[in-house]
Amino acid sequence: MSEKKAFKIGIAGLGTVGCGVIKLLQKNADQIALKTGRHLEISAVSARHKNKERSVDVSAYQWIDDPSGLAHAPEIDCVVELIGGSDGVARDLVGAALSNKKHVVSANKALIAHHGTELATLAEENRAQLFYEAAVAGGIPIIKTLREGLAGNKISGFFGILNGTSNYILSEMRKTGRDFGDVLKEAQDKGYAEADPAFDINGTDTAHKLSILSALAFGAVPDFDNIKISGIDYLTSEDIAFAEELGYRIKLLGVGQKVEDAVFQDVSACLVPGESTFGHVEGPDNAVQIFADAVGQVLNVGLGAGKMPTASAVVADIMDIASGLEKPVFGLPMSDLQKMKSGGAEILERKHYLHLKVIDQPGVVAEIAAILRDHDISIESFIQRGRRPKQAVSLVMVTHESVLSAMSKAVKAIADLSFLEKPPVCLRIEA
Amino acid sequence: MSEKKAFKIGIAGLGTVGCGVIKLLQKNADQIALKTGRHLEISAVSARHKNKERSVDVSAYQWIDDPSGLAHAPEIDCVVELIGGSDGVARDLVGAALSNKKHVVSANKALIAHHGTELATLAEENRAQLFYEAAVAGGIPIIKTLREGLAGNKISGFFGILNGTSNYILSEMRKTGRDFGDVLKEAQDKGYAEADPAFDINGTDTAHKLSILSALAFGAVPDFDNIKISGIDYLTSEDIAFAEELGYRIKLLGVGQKVEDAVFQDVSACLVPGESTFGHVEGPDNAVQIFADAVGQVLNVGLGAGKMPTASAVVADIMDIASGLEKPVFGLPMSDLQKMKSGGAEILERKHYLHLKVIDQPGVVAEIAAILRDHDISIESFIQRGRRPKQAVSLVMVTHESVLSAMSKAVKAIADLSFLEKPPVCLRIEA
Repeated sequence: MSEKKAFKIGIAGLGTVGCGVIKLLQKNADQIALKTGRHLEISAVSARHKNKERSVDVSAYQWIDDPSGLAHAPEIDCVVELIGGSDGVARDLVGAALSNKKHVVSANKALIAHHGTELATLAEENRAQLFYEAAVAGGIPIIKTLREGLAGNKISGFFGILNGTSNYILSEMRKTGRDFGDVLKEAQDKGYAEADPAFDINGTDTAHKLSILSALAFGAVPDFDNIKISGIDYLTSEDIAFAEELGYRIKLLGVGQKVEDAVFQDVSACLVPGESTFGHVEGPDNAVQIFADAVGQVLNVGLGAGKMPTASAVVADIMDIASGLEKPVFGLPMSDLQKMKSGGAEILERKHYLHLKVIDQPGVVAEIAAILRDHDISIESFIQRGRRPKQAVSLVMVTHESVLSAMSKAVKAIADLSFLEKPPVCLRIEA
Repeated sequence: MSEKKAFKIGIAGLGTVGCGVIKLLQKNADQIALKTGRHLEISAVSARHKNKERSVDVSAYQWIDDPSGLAHAPEIDCVVELIGGSDGVARDLVGAALSNKKHVVSANKALIAHHGTELATLAEENRAQLFYEAAVAGGIPIIKTLREGLAGNKISGFFGILNGTSNYILSEMRKTGRDFGDVLKEAQDKGYAEADPAFDINGTDTAHKLSILSALAFGAVPDFDNIKISGIDYLTSEDIAFAEELGYRIKLLGVGQKVEDAVFQDVSACLVPGESTFGHVEGPDNAVQIFADAVGQVLNVGLGAGKMPTASAVVADIMDIASGLEKPVFGLPMSDLQKMKSGGAEILERKHYLHLKVIDQPGVVAEIAAILRDHDISIESFIQRGRRPKQAVSLVMVTHESVLSAMSKAVKAIADLSFLEKPPVCLRIEA
């Protein structure tokens, strides 16, 4: 090992993850050096505030005020970007580092989702590596699994629980029967949800990760802008309970699927079978289920965020690069990545859960049933309990496999019915 | 890509997996070449019978009667050993190939478990790669996950469902309430179990895989000989039902755990929580749950055997080697692997499930309770139903966390009691 010179790292961003990375590199230094075949050395660090109290001692490392300095320091082999945000400092730093032929490890899903194509091109031009295992599903090595472990497979699709905050909230709602706002508040108090949880609960964070997984899985240019995104804030404890009664659990899923020459990408709350392995992924865990031609199905489960799980992924990337691994950013040379056509809703078929809050009056079911029939949708099961004439009651149904676009049209038509008390809740069932 | 010359493969063994590998290399050839950065070319094949009917056409490839010829063919870069068996032809071939500085990909768990140290040393001396992703958990990239994905972590332990046949049988017993022999027979008829299922159901196959995972996880020399091995053939439908009543499911587990400076390795039927993700791994699926200092827990699930899942793993290994990946066989240079001390039973604590078939007579519970007390074991829950004076009844209990060796001694003492109708069934609870 002594022959090879140390691999020098510059770390930008010393928040939770940055401190976790330093802690892990210090704690397991011997093993890391043995496995990598050379020493990893933190050469310099950079963050907004030099004198902030931190959980690790960074006084031994060169301090650089302006993170872009890391991209220009001649001794640095690899810049570790842990600043976050799709633009601004993070984007500038990664661009500058790659332009200077430095490798980059980033945990920044928004950056890769929005600017992955541009940055990957830059990496390729400069023969530098751009790795981002920590950007998706935290400590689960899902990028490596797609890029290398299943490299011989054609991947037909995947779905994932990619946001731990959402999964925690949905799990708590199911276990306690409480409503969304109530559980979110508690999650914030406990530190499981951020003060501004918008990206977590509205599906944006999941969509960032979905676009990265799609690119890798399908050999396609990342296409964040064409993802249909919805979140979980409109779900009620009633929906959670109905789903469970029907044998399902509700999860916020990022779904990617090849449909002929197009790719279907969608973020929304879906039902998954309650008795499946995937259905039992609860709390802050993430999970990705991959469907591929040779391997069949593979499921990976683990913590999707947090200081040390994320550090685990960042350090694995650094070790890979230090030991000489070279991989195209999205698994294929840029010239071989396909430009995705977005689509599939006209072809894909799924069962759906449909919850309608209607005024209990004669003819309601007949009108709804007629609309479904007109869109070629048939019902597998139906729940209606008791009678409350002239008051709002719930009609809940599970459809047989129905074309997604037909289902959307039917739901739109149903939403216009005068006796609807609130907008229909229509969720795909994925299995 | 055109710059690099094709990577030439010689395949030994054209059974199910061999044909699967050829099929996958043919079917996804374009993608495989793009991802690898060079073409993979099957240069020669070898098997016992040249003119046997096969699911793939091998007439285009050079036929070599004696597989050892693959180890000596100057044009071959990598020998793919799919013959099986811990000794004989497979061992000779792999040894000869490595000695001739050829890379080797093998799906042979028995070979790696029994001769891994010797072969890894040979690989290191000859600067050749020896990869064996397909040897453990079929299509699940668990070797890559341990060797690379979690490389920055210290791994404290893992447990795995590593034999699909056993898991299928246990799942069917639970679902149908039928007995072991009956379900095994059906599994054989359906092709889920082999005509001679001994290694699958007596734990040997699981132990082969366990010894490989332990080596990688703990940076240790593989130590198959010190694994305590038992199987599933003594389990009754009654045990499965009692476990379920207590909130658990029975799985045949390979367990590896660091205990101070020793490693605990054990193959046995264990209880796992019925409500956990892991507990829901049913049928022929395999699963490995890893416990590590940074990442926490990571779970991987997928098919552990079969033509195409195994081919997926073999092809991924070939692609890795062809694209230049170099990794020590067990994750660390041989000189850095620790010689394992086997142990842990004096220290490790677990809850246990204990099923005693006793003659219903006064004083029985008192005697059993006294033995448990004398070994410092306390009871968490207890099932005894009805009374059948002078006849055999079941006493089932779950203990609090108890030291494994104390539990063994207590069970031995209980087994000697005169009113025991059959040997006690004592299973660890893993979670």
